[in-house]
Amino acid sequence: MMARNVLVSGGAGYIGSHTVLQLLLGGYSVVVVDNLDNSSAVSLQRVKKLAAEHGERLSFHQVDLRDRSALEKIFSETKFDAVIHFAGLKAVGESVEKPLLYYNNNLVGTITLLEVMAQHGCKNLVFSSSATVYGSPKEVPCTEEFPISALNPYGRTKLFIEEICRDVYGSDPEWKIILLRYFNPVGAHPSGDIGEDPRGIPNNLMPFVQQVAVGRRPHLTVFGNDYNTKDGTGVRDYIHVIDLADGHIAALRKLEDCKIGCEVYNLGTGNGTSVLEMVDAFEKASGKKIPLVIAGRRPGDAEVVYASTERAESELNWKAKYGIEEMCRDLWNWASNNPYGYDSSSEDNSH
Amino acid sequence: MMARNVLVSGGAGYIGSHTVLQLLLGGYSVVVVDNLDNSSAVSLQRVKKLAAEHGERLSFHQVDLRDRSALEKIFSETKFDAVIHFAGLKAVGESVEKPLLYYNNNLVGTITLLEVMAQHGCKNLVFSSSATVYGSPKEVPCTEEFPISALNPYGRTKLFIEEICRDVYGSDPEWKIILLRYFNPVGAHPSGDIGEDPRGIPNNLMPFVQQVAVGRRPHLTVFGNDYNTKDGTGVRDYIHVIDLADGHIAALRKLEDCKIGCEVYNLGTGNGTSVLEMVDAFEKASGKKIPLVIAGRRPGDAEVVYASTERAESELNWKAKYGIEEMCRDLWNWASNNPYGYDSSSEDNSH
Repeated sequence: MMARNVLVSGGAGYIGSHTVLQLLLGGYSVVVVDNLDNSSAVSLQRVKKLAAEHGERLSFHQVDLRDRSALEKIFSETKFDAVIHFAGLKAVGESVEKPLLYYNNNLVGTITLLEVMAQHGCKNLVFSSSATVYGSPKEVPCTEEFPISALNPYGRTKLFIEEICRDVYGSDPEWKIILLRYFNPVGAHPSGDIGEDPRGIPNNLMPFVQQVAVGRRPHLTVFGNDYNTKDGTGVRDYIHVIDLADGHIAALRKLEDCKIGCEVYNLGTGNGTSVLEMVDAFEKASGKKIPLVIAGRRPGDAEVVYASTERAESELNWKAKYGIEEMCRDLWNWASNNPYGYDSSSEDNSH
Repeated sequence: MMARNVLVSGGAGYIGSHTVLQLLLGGYSVVVVDNLDNSSAVSLQRVKKLAAEHGERLSFHQVDLRDRSALEKIFSETKFDAVIHFAGLKAVGESVEKPLLYYNNNLVGTITLLEVMAQHGCKNLVFSSSATVYGSPKEVPCTEEFPISALNPYGRTKLFIEEICRDVYGSDPEWKIILLRYFNPVGAHPSGDIGEDPRGIPNNLMPFVQQVAVGRRPHLTVFGNDYNTKDGTGVRDYIHVIDLADGHIAALRKLEDCKIGCEVYNLGTGNGTSVLEMVDAFEKASGKKIPLVIAGRRPGDAEVVYASTERAESELNWKAKYGIEEMCRDLWNWASNNPYGYDSSSEDNSH
């Protein structure tokens, strides 16, 4: 396997760090660029250890993508074969309150990255998009041809960046771009050493459940139990973060296919799981009881969203392997070993 | 009339310079910020002259909106009551070839401007949007509630900026934002001293006709004469640039209305005119024959687009006054006096 040079923006983050580990184990050389705005360099130290001898092919630059000169320096030092672009702010609530922060960080960062890539002749890109661009789909499963929309500024940055990528490819067919629409990433590496470590109030279900389980939060609020679903709670397509990471490796391989232009692939399992089912699976995996408070629906939340995975399976030769049991098992393993995430060594982590 | 301080981005451009003149005559103090990428400072020298004593309330900074520190300096020197934001690249063809140039210039410039405005407590904005966000409308006239879409990167930057403005207002109701969707600006100030001076190949019909009339181009290519319209050629809503400029004054007055949030207004006449009708009116106004070459339809061109102007009339108390005769008369007056635009004094303007 020829060692390939891949730049990973946002590689210290949750999905980024897991993908970096899989890249190293897959024989790639990886340069991570991350401003650590919503991640910790500790994740990459642990990735290096987990990767054993492969860890030597990992280097890290604490750089913000909007720092054009710093980015150009990195691109002049290494001839990259591809870029996997994770970097971006991703908290929905925060994006509604501070839209310009999101448009600046996510759009300006991406525009600068694409310009520097083009200047240095690196035109292979895997972009970390999201199923949020399906908005509240009228039917499921979501296929890649569904109309796209945005429910909040965070979702709008993902949608805008997809459109920008399509225009970039339209202007220069040398580009090869894969847009990966994640559904709901959950879990952690089976070692329990790396995992999701959101700052402030978690936006997503399972990091919230995780913090209740370690005593950081008193209960889980369930937003709506009167949906037209199996138990009245919202249904999503949860996917193990290792499966998701492997999806990026599959996408990198696909970029070597000369016919690809700018293509979209869902990364999900194709299964819908309700909030109560996930809580139940987590309680079984952790042995912890999760107190629930039922509240009204959250405006903008969709009822049921899960993926059609046919395209990724047939064209990326990729399929999710893990179920919600493994996701909850590995999530609990990470949470119990790191109750305060990467800051777990800090004093105030009284149980 | 209390002199009000208005910053006008892109104020040296075609619509910007006409609006600056109307602002000065209306008693406003105007600071223009323009990077002169696609405009000439000569326009503002002539505006100053046309404004007579009002010209003293005009100042100009050759600054790019992406130069945050320069923009902050301007905002720290003057307490602005409002900003009219014209600045942006606007050539459709170029945007398809160089999308990142457009996303960088138009989006990064706007995001920076909005951030600096917020930092300096100026939250009144009139944004120069475009009827291009109506894409190829299924029916006419276009009302402000129509679904919006984009046909090219230029149009997408307008759409993105409208969405960003809506999100900014959504996050902070202190903002008051008016999005003006122009239809097809034509003509010039009756003095003939200021007018449209596009660089390179004109994108729009009348600047092209203008250059044919002064001998800069041999003929006009008509893209499609088999449309389902009165004479088979495309139909648009042409509006005199002075009417358009006055629409911005009306929008500024509306910003003083505390109830306004982030609102859209069409600026058009409500009338549809075909390509051949416009050429005919111009030939009458100029006495010049415009040789035509009929070509096939241009992909992405809509068949018929014209405005519903009810909203602007009822809520901005504004209505277009001039017809296509005045537009063509004033266009020819500008073109014949300035065959090479603001560079007309240059040697190579042989007839």
